[in-house]
Amino acid sequence: MSIKSIEAPGFKMVDGGICAAKGFRANGLNCGLNPDKNKYDLALFVSDTDCDSAAVYTTNLVKGAPILVTKDHLEKNNGKLRGVIANSKNANTCNKDGVEKAEKMCALAAEQLGLKSEELAVASTGVIGESFRMEPIESHIRELAEGLTYDGGSRAEYAIMTTDTVAKEIAVEFELDGKICHLGGMAKGSGMIHPNMATTLNFVTTDVAIDGDLLQKALSELVKITYNCLSVDGDTSTNDMILVMANGQAGNEKITETGEVFDVTSDAPAGSYQKVYKALWLVLVNLTRMLAADGEGAGKFVSCTVEEAASREDAITLARSVIASSLVKCAMFGEDANCGRVICALGYAGVPLDVEKIDIDLASEAGRMPAYRGGYAVPFDEEYAAKLLHEDEIEVLVNIHAGQAKGTAWGCDMTYDYVKINGDYRS
Amino acid sequence: MSIKSIEAPGFKMVDGGICAAKGFRANGLNCGLNPDKNKYDLALFVSDTDCDSAAVYTTNLVKGAPILVTKDHLEKNNGKLRGVIANSKNANTCNKDGVEKAEKMCALAAEQLGLKSEELAVASTGVIGESFRMEPIESHIRELAEGLTYDGGSRAEYAIMTTDTVAKEIAVEFELDGKICHLGGMAKGSGMIHPNMATTLNFVTTDVAIDGDLLQKALSELVKITYNCLSVDGDTSTNDMILVMANGQAGNEKITETGEVFDVTSDAPAGSYQKVYKALWLVLVNLTRMLAADGEGAGKFVSCTVEEAASREDAITLARSVIASSLVKCAMFGEDANCGRVICALGYAGVPLDVEKIDIDLASEAGRMPAYRGGYAVPFDEEYAAKLLHEDEIEVLVNIHAGQAKGTAWGCDMTYDYVKINGDYRS
Repeated sequence: MSIKSIEAPGFKMVDGGICAAKGFRANGLNCGLNPDKNKYDLALFVSDTDCDSAAVYTTNLVKGAPILVTKDHLEKNNGKLRGVIANSKNANTCNKDGVEKAEKMCALAAEQLGLKSEELAVASTGVIGESFRMEPIESHIRELAEGLTYDGGSRAEYAIMTTDTVAKEIAVEFELDGKICHLGGMAKGSGMIHPNMATTLNFVTTDVAIDGDLLQKALSELVKITYNCLSVDGDTSTNDMILVMANGQAGNEKITETGEVFDVTSDAPAGSYQKVYKALWLVLVNLTRMLAADGEGAGKFVSCTVEEAASREDAITLARSVIASSLVKCAMFGEDANCGRVICALGYAGVPLDVEKIDIDLASEAGRMPAYRGGYAVPFDEEYAAKLLHEDEIEVLVNIHAGQAKGTAWGCDMTYDYVKINGDYRS
Repeated sequence: MSIKSIEAPGFKMVDGGICAAKGFRANGLNCGLNPDKNKYDLALFVSDTDCDSAAVYTTNLVKGAPILVTKDHLEKNNGKLRGVIANSKNANTCNKDGVEKAEKMCALAAEQLGLKSEELAVASTGVIGESFRMEPIESHIRELAEGLTYDGGSRAEYAIMTTDTVAKEIAVEFELDGKICHLGGMAKGSGMIHPNMATTLNFVTTDVAIDGDLLQKALSELVKITYNCLSVDGDTSTNDMILVMANGQAGNEKITETGEVFDVTSDAPAGSYQKVYKALWLVLVNLTRMLAADGEGAGKFVSCTVEEAASREDAITLARSVIASSLVKCAMFGEDANCGRVICALGYAGVPLDVEKIDIDLASEAGRMPAYRGGYAVPFDEEYAAKLLHEDEIEVLVNIHAGQAKGTAWGCDMTYDYVKINGDYRS
């Protein structure tokens, strides 16, 4: 399913994903972790120069070995990175020799690139608790490094995909100090997705020059209104991360101050930090929406926006509760305007609510329909509702009349295919 | 799927459900709320004499009108009740005239029985937010009351069932002060089940004489280790309740003191309160297990027991996280020993954990198999695992080596049928 992008004036959508930014080379190939020779399973990307970097990781107490190694490398290297090696098919998690093997992956890549191990991050996705085979990586690392190109982003993306059915890449171009800048990213889904942060592997690169602490601040804030508003199945993965790398090759004056705060959905103020913040939001929010739309087995992309909440946190908690409800998800699959399940999910979200102030509408390209007013169901035309829900993109619009804050969460319907995909994922 | 009952010495399993206790008459019929004339949709049961009563209700902030009316009646009538009127097909929730109609249901039944309205409780289950039709009830209330019999429990049970595929009734017989006593119950499932308390409709009757406050104390405690350990789909319903009614017709000396506390899974001390407490646990835990096994679309009954936790609450929270995980549920459906998903679900449960102390086994009638030791996957024989998981009842056994407490949660696998049933539930 392909969905509309969120765009913004002053930011041009461009191709290239993680290679849209100057000075980044990437590659991907099949090394044999995946027996399907047509499916890439090993990715490498690298910047020509040092990158100020920022990262957020899963909140799951069970953490994949690659997460531990990446954190350690970022610390050892003072928040700088040069590149990333990543694989799919095996999560390298809950294996006794996991850390050792994640270190080895970095060492192998570093050797090819003439770098130090700690200049590399490592990421793995796939089955948890399955012994990790190094041999396929050892025997293909040279070919992988030699094949790095400035337009290889899509090969790297293909290598990190698991049950994803579409590639998830996006990049924007904008101007800072008269210099053309780029910020782009790639992501993989598509199950075990209920970030807190995080889930999925997400890599963002930019040629902007920006202080690493500011990049971290922007990332940490933006994750709350992008990835953390995503739910495919309520399972928070053990392995996933967002990594942002900025190599400064655009030539702008290095950003070292935030300037004034602004609402990211409004037009950005002219400041450099604001522009980068907005660019990062555009890339993260679009990747988040792509992940939701390509949730395992998804037939529909569903978003829920809660308006007039007392706080943004309340709005997001309520919206996520709706999006994560198995019963709402099944109703969307069945194209059934069963908004009793929506109000039910709002009621158990844990947010104080005046039930008699809840309004609910359903909307899609085919129109918009009131379903609840003041906590009570309102009659509606079943035929119109069916037409509305037959679309691929469905919006559940909630107003709780409790304040002025707003939040959106994204997800998908629940289908036979979700069950099928996850009934025998290891094979 | 029929599953083994949990039994205990000194308690004999008997037939009769809510009519096993002396002095309770029940009936059920199709009044036309459900267009399928073969499916009963209206239930009534009544005690010949006043009952000390106890109840727990859903924690959802959106509460069905019948919940509000039942609470009110119990208050007005000083915790006493004589009977219950209940319907399926329409939850009478989020309707503007819902309270009025729930009151009307009580009034109609009271008129037939020569009682006051507030001597009756009311319960509804079915679609939320759909206009409630009183006419079918008005036109059938006389027939319903006239058909009340001392062996009519199963008719009442059939009338409250929705997507349930099997009836859920159980009763035990035991002795107090040389008198034969009975305690029995019925329940309906089988989706929107993730109690906190509650979910589903659950009615328990007994001929024991016991103070209402003690009954409430027992119920409130036992719900924590029975219904609240159940999850079918993570959705906490708006309507559901457990109601316990004790009419004292067994002739035992009225119980007014608790006596010493004991572990309900061990043998009960000889005290009267302990015996009733144990009887209530037996009925609640078996109904809970039946609800799990008959979860919507369920093909397998799955339980998770967490041992050596720091507290019972921790153990239950962890066990519930495993049971509620969509990915674990799909793996059970696929008979795939993917315990990486189990450790993942433990990791995001919100309970502090030393990951390197987690042991996980899988067990069924076919055997028991270690899957994780000290937080790491251990190799296992895929053929043996497949045989083990091919059974109908699967146990996930977790030891976290953090203390001495234990807890169990119950659920089911996730199947194509769950999605199908919930894709068009309103039709």
